[in-house]
Amino acid sequence: MSDLRTDALDYHANPRPGKLSVELTKPTATARDLALAYSPGVAEPVREIAKDALNAYKYTGKGNLVAVISDGTAILGLGNLGPLASKPVMEGKGVLFKRFAGIDVFDIEVESESPQAFIDTVKRISCTFGGINLEDIKAPECFEIERALIEQCDIPVFHDDQHGTAIVTAAAMINALELADKTLEDAKIVCLGAGAAAIACMKLLVSMGCKVENIYMLDRKGVIHSGRDDLNEYKAIFATDTEKRTLADAMKGADVFVGLSGPNLLQPAELKLMAENPIVFACSNPDPEIDPELAHASRPDVIMATGRSDYPNQVNNVLGFPFIFRGALDVRATRINEEMKIAAVHAIRKLAKEPVPEYVSAAYGGISLEFGRDYIIPKPMDVRLIEEVPAAVAQAAIDSGVATLPYPAHYPLKSVEDCI
Amino acid sequence: MSDLRTDALDYHANPRPGKLSVELTKPTATARDLALAYSPGVAEPVREIAKDALNAYKYTGKGNLVAVISDGTAILGLGNLGPLASKPVMEGKGVLFKRFAGIDVFDIEVESESPQAFIDTVKRISCTFGGINLEDIKAPECFEIERALIEQCDIPVFHDDQHGTAIVTAAAMINALELADKTLEDAKIVCLGAGAAAIACMKLLVSMGCKVENIYMLDRKGVIHSGRDDLNEYKAIFATDTEKRTLADAMKGADVFVGLSGPNLLQPAELKLMAENPIVFACSNPDPEIDPELAHASRPDVIMATGRSDYPNQVNNVLGFPFIFRGALDVRATRINEEMKIAAVHAIRKLAKEPVPEYVSAAYGGISLEFGRDYIIPKPMDVRLIEEVPAAVAQAAIDSGVATLPYPAHYPLKSVEDCI
Repeated sequence: MSDLRTDALDYHANPRPGKLSVELTKPTATARDLALAYSPGVAEPVREIAKDALNAYKYTGKGNLVAVISDGTAILGLGNLGPLASKPVMEGKGVLFKRFAGIDVFDIEVESESPQAFIDTVKRISCTFGGINLEDIKAPECFEIERALIEQCDIPVFHDDQHGTAIVTAAAMINALELADKTLEDAKIVCLGAGAAAIACMKLLVSMGCKVENIYMLDRKGVIHSGRDDLNEYKAIFATDTEKRTLADAMKGADVFVGLSGPNLLQPAELKLMAENPIVFACSNPDPEIDPELAHASRPDVIMATGRSDYPNQVNNVLGFPFIFRGALDVRATRINEEMKIAAVHAIRKLAKEPVPEYVSAAYGGISLEFGRDYIIPKPMDVRLIEEVPAAVAQAAIDSGVATLPYPAHYPLKSVEDCI
Repeated sequence: MSDLRTDALDYHANPRPGKLSVELTKPTATARDLALAYSPGVAEPVREIAKDALNAYKYTGKGNLVAVISDGTAILGLGNLGPLASKPVMEGKGVLFKRFAGIDVFDIEVESESPQAFIDTVKRISCTFGGINLEDIKAPECFEIERALIEQCDIPVFHDDQHGTAIVTAAAMINALELADKTLEDAKIVCLGAGAAAIACMKLLVSMGCKVENIYMLDRKGVIHSGRDDLNEYKAIFATDTEKRTLADAMKGADVFVGLSGPNLLQPAELKLMAENPIVFACSNPDPEIDPELAHASRPDVIMATGRSDYPNQVNNVLGFPFIFRGALDVRATRINEEMKIAAVHAIRKLAKEPVPEYVSAAYGGISLEFGRDYIIPKPMDVRLIEEVPAAVAQAAIDSGVATLPYPAHYPLKSVEDCI
């Protein structure tokens, strides 16, 4: 890790601080250029926007601009370190938005006294942007914040820690279930963790056909059941009428384990209690709930995914958010609804079943990538993601009535340059 | 004007909307690159910043990032058209910051119900930035907003419509006074207009030696005098004990006229009342308080400046704000104080007295630029501005105790690339 540490600090510091810059896209060489970019020429687009707000999409960067906004209360796995310390992560998210989908990002770090102060702040600056990606905000505040901002803003507001994670997890899950000869409808699921990501993952699986009574969710106190009186409204959705109390209780006969909790919280003994062909998504990062090698040793029939890039089947949000926003921005969707999320799930999971272009294998050291237990989800470097996912999301936005532009002439996208 | 209109709209719309993009400054080709830019590598700079907030300047873009923030209540000469309509102007300001001083800008448009809401919003997002440039906010709210934000933020907060205008006006004024064989100490000044820019201009002139009792300021109701009971606290500073009531009253024997009001509000008859070698700064834009040709016809001895690029002596804020912020950011000043503003005034005005490089004349159609009545202030395309003004501002910050870094090794700057 010391090598990664040194390299990461050097990467961020040199030759100049940070990872992003703001650059000019129009000529500025002559006095005439500047008279168009600023006074007096700039008065013309101002007047046009004052006449019709939609002209902001025609004359400014709004339509390709996403705010990545955090209060720094739940930074990666590091916890509440405050807004300023979250800045490298938010800038990093901007790097990924640009690198994978050509989207411009302003990272905004918010120091707020309360969820309401955060909501008010983001709402007031929202007209600057074409979309808002909320990031690293702790639960349960993140639910209230997202709900209020979706209601109050006329642009897409998306908490990636919830829905991005849910979409990519669901894509991998559906493929894993198929390989295990199981179905979402019948699968018995254990979810270790009851934070924002866990709740969003389970909600999305339910909206795709999973039965809520087949889900056992566990927080620090054990199984979330109907006899508990300490549940917030978000956890309470998953309270089941059950005698099960411990992780071992829940794991008995379970088809699926989803870990969104902490390192090494799943023991081999518990894994051994699962049904045949168990599916284990151990997504705690950087250290999963169970070491993949240990898991395979304990249960040779396991289908395993993690959040790590050095094992097969990385559940990585970057497979989702750049392309979901690309699709939403391109048809100027007013929100990112359930239909768009599910369209993204299917577009992502289908890609894993297609033959993989050689450059993708090459980018990952020439490993074989054929649909199966060690390849249930596409790799980030797969350019087919930008070709397929935004188009699916855009079409879903249109079909569900939240798009305000027709299907873009430039679909299917062939490259990032295509979409900007 | 129809040509400018068409060109300006085309410039803003094509080949893609807006004038700015966010770009990557570090490699992102490989999976390893991405592991440094985002998870897991990004955790390292996060931890460093959590340990010491100053590390944000080392590992993120904060130190070269200025927010250009408006509520759209006083857009150019167009009035209160709301925050969204101000976006082309704020993006244009970003273009100028980058073009002239290599500073990255996020434009932020704020929809706020009250000055307090605006203050709270900007304060909460301020840790994102290395500096804040307030723009196009109407008076008197802008005074309260700026004062509160300067108090509450530990980074420079600068309302360019006030202080940028004041600095560039003062630079031109001092040179004009010298040419007219007058002094700031004795000059009798008429200021038509009592908005943010007018008040800031007169305050800066006073802090540079002008006597407040030598200033007659006029608002829509005429001369601001001590008998009036309708003055806010900002105008009240300039209430003089006088019998003068009209512009004509005030102009009698005046040495200087500064117009920051509206088109054609100064009549030749009033101009004729002024003392010998009158100085007329008719800065209303795009139409000055008096047409320069009419002014010269009425008073052949006039020294005239305007806000227009198609007449000599353009008082243009772009001579100030990029370089003032460059100097402030480079020594990480905690504020932009009076000493720094005055240093900028002198650095700018001195440049006008130096022989002009050939490329500058060439950029303006080969016109002769020799210190005199038709050349009292440098031209925006003069690269010596970036060589001289930031260094002077930085030195003043150090001398006045608001710098937190030593004089930068890279001064004097030789180009924009030098400073980023």
